[in-house]
Amino acid sequence: MNDSVEASDFSAIRIADVIRKKRDGHELSRAEIAHLVDGYTRGEIPDYQVSAWLMAALLRGLTRAETAALTDSMLHSGQVLDLSEFAAAKVDKHSTGGVGDKTSLVLAPLAAAGGLVVPMISGRGLGHTGGTLDKLESIPGFRVDLSIARFREVLRECGCAMIGQTAEIAPADRKFYALRDVTGTVESPFLICASIMSKKLAEGIDALVLDVKTGSGAFMKTEQDAVFLAELMVETGQRMGKKTVALITNMDQPLGLRVGNALEVEECIEILHGRGPADLRELCVELGGWMLHLGGRARTAAHGKGLAVELIESGRALKVFRRMVGLQGGDVAAIDDPSRLPRARHSLEVVSAKSGYVSAIQCEGVGTASVVLGGGREKKEDSIDPAVGVVVHKKVGDRVSAGEALCILHYNSGTRAAQAKQLIEQSYRIGETPPAPLPLVRKIISGGAT
Amino acid sequence: MNDSVEASDFSAIRIADVIRKKRDGHELSRAEIAHLVDGYTRGEIPDYQVSAWLMAALLRGLTRAETAALTDSMLHSGQVLDLSEFAAAKVDKHSTGGVGDKTSLVLAPLAAAGGLVVPMISGRGLGHTGGTLDKLESIPGFRVDLSIARFREVLRECGCAMIGQTAEIAPADRKFYALRDVTGTVESPFLICASIMSKKLAEGIDALVLDVKTGSGAFMKTEQDAVFLAELMVETGQRMGKKTVALITNMDQPLGLRVGNALEVEECIEILHGRGPADLRELCVELGGWMLHLGGRARTAAHGKGLAVELIESGRALKVFRRMVGLQGGDVAAIDDPSRLPRARHSLEVVSAKSGYVSAIQCEGVGTASVVLGGGREKKEDSIDPAVGVVVHKKVGDRVSAGEALCILHYNSGTRAAQAKQLIEQSYRIGETPPAPLPLVRKIISGGAT
Repeated sequence: MNDSVEASDFSAIRIADVIRKKRDGHELSRAEIAHLVDGYTRGEIPDYQVSAWLMAALLRGLTRAETAALTDSMLHSGQVLDLSEFAAAKVDKHSTGGVGDKTSLVLAPLAAAGGLVVPMISGRGLGHTGGTLDKLESIPGFRVDLSIARFREVLRECGCAMIGQTAEIAPADRKFYALRDVTGTVESPFLICASIMSKKLAEGIDALVLDVKTGSGAFMKTEQDAVFLAELMVETGQRMGKKTVALITNMDQPLGLRVGNALEVEECIEILHGRGPADLRELCVELGGWMLHLGGRARTAAHGKGLAVELIESGRALKVFRRMVGLQGGDVAAIDDPSRLPRARHSLEVVSAKSGYVSAIQCEGVGTASVVLGGGREKKEDSIDPAVGVVVHKKVGDRVSAGEALCILHYNSGTRAAQAKQLIEQSYRIGETPPAPLPLVRKIISGGAT
Repeated sequence: MNDSVEASDFSAIRIADVIRKKRDGHELSRAEIAHLVDGYTRGEIPDYQVSAWLMAALLRGLTRAETAALTDSMLHSGQVLDLSEFAAAKVDKHSTGGVGDKTSLVLAPLAAAGGLVVPMISGRGLGHTGGTLDKLESIPGFRVDLSIARFREVLRECGCAMIGQTAEIAPADRKFYALRDVTGTVESPFLICASIMSKKLAEGIDALVLDVKTGSGAFMKTEQDAVFLAELMVETGQRMGKKTVALITNMDQPLGLRVGNALEVEECIEILHGRGPADLRELCVELGGWMLHLGGRARTAAHGKGLAVELIESGRALKVFRRMVGLQGGDVAAIDDPSRLPRARHSLEVVSAKSGYVSAIQCEGVGTASVVLGGGREKKEDSIDPAVGVVVHKKVGDRVSAGEALCILHYNSGTRAAQAKQLIEQSYRIGETPPAPLPLVRKIISGGAT
């Protein structure tokens, strides 16, 4: 097919027909989806037509082929990094978001210490969940807005780098996401898949480990929804020729014990020292094991896990983290002495009204409490207070006495603390007997191709 | 409830929540719908949120209460005419649109001659269908853009007036309609109902007769869809306290014999003289009978039909038409001598390739042929040629010999005529035996309240 014929075929697609076709439940061609994505990115198709299409796509669903085409068009709306200069496998990890979900800060240096290259492009907090960029910025001086050139240099120096989305990477996704956010079209697994996968595949990676959260602190409240999204993303990644695996993990309570930006950085440093809470350590080892396996550094995921433990215990992962912080402008002294990280001026115990066992935690409430304290944004224009957050003292299954602390709030505003306290109190359920334990990794979705 | 509380309740409605609620199939409250319509009309809610809502409404449907609330909000987005100065009942008729569908020009003066007041606000041609305003404007000098004050004067003088939508009447509908047109959200019976009924009820009428077309020349291709829309409109009208009835009528072939603006005016003058094609006359008498009945001028619709025939035969309806044309600036001499109406320079016979019976007419094709000749608009900015159109010589069931004319095209551009000829040829089906006759009025929907 010659170029001019293709171009004229393409221009014959009318966006109103594309909207109606999806509205009526028919499958769109690659060319129709490309027309929509490219036209919108270039500003030729207006917001109001795309939002009608997004609602039709949400309610009618997309086929696997449409989802792959959407991902591909968004991926190619900008620059796809070429990291072929690096001999090592390029591997990344992505989480769908949770409360106290801080594994990226451990895993990027861990996998780099294991010989992989980790070109991680992350996001900000969304709703009740925290964001990797907000956490990193609580380290004094840390810059997440590196140029692509500097990003490469940091990768070359220490094997990992962690930045925010740039104008060059998947610009279509940024436009689509902003529109979805205000048109009730966020909650579609197909659109979520295309958004996540287009950004991650633009990093020029060979393999991707997905951490799909499910439970009261996740966006996917049911395991069924989480598995559906995970399968979609794994299939899409594999269609694009990338090794992709997804772990369905529990988010019915905060991960680790700390929720809030500087508080979470501190906990990651604990983990990198071989200490810290068992659940967070377990998940870092699980995900790290898969990254090392997919990146060819371990024969199996189980072997990868062994290697991950070794990379932590030996201090090699911590060394890479320290190096990366320095290269990205952060204050290394705060890594060596976390008491130099931002600290809130006040703290407040939230205590249990009765004795018993923590039978459940409405985990979104704990995340919202941290946002309310200033750890996240209630409106887009809000700024983050890096110091505030929630330190969890009792997790599901723990014994608690009346008057004993469930959480300690770290705050700078009394009004906000009062609101957060109420949210925490409403989030805890205290029962008379200990509940069944919550398994951390609930399923592994590998699509049979790994 | 005091006003300030109500106002604050209202401002607490968030449009993103309204979109999500409809997306998830829940019923919206009157306040939520009013917030959407008022906010959009005032320009406070952007197009892209309304188009997402429209697609959700199209795919999820609206309840009867939501449809009534939407109609009511759109109705009250502008001025609702107060015609209480007129002692007589105010009655209107509305058609969902067809090919050769010209009954308004007969019915407004007919009902006025019968003692009713007919404040008719009409539209332009849409797609393959003609528009009342375009037809009226083919009468030299005729003005459809009267002010509301002048509209009242004409009503006072002759009992009927026919104008286009003004800025004061249902401005919300104009904004919604323009957005629906480009976002694939036209084809929802709920949205169609709210659009039609808000405009008609803004006329300050007491009763409304709806002509819901079904068949190959209508927007509702199946009788089922037409009945669904008719029931929705009748129920909405009755909820608003207006006598409302709908006739489901056949549009599987053009109504009457003439399609095109001046050609249709000429045919209406024929009808008002007591001549003209039987099907058009029959439908005018049916619809007129219902108008006279609902307006209290006839005990039953059957009595109303008798009165309608009398109003035609006596020349009283023609007299009112002539009067109205004069009052609206039109050349009365063209009514007395239709040869003074615009005439196309050329004509062309489209002949049958074989002998037999006309078994079917793809009626949309005939309408499109008239549009192509210049009788309608292919793009919004096109201007209308009032003279051109199609004169139908053979209708469904007619015997035809090979080489005999099916239609005669009246045209001013040879290129367009060639294209129209092809459309007509493709629209006729010639069979060996006569088909079953097409009943004109297929159903009457009166909602049990009339």
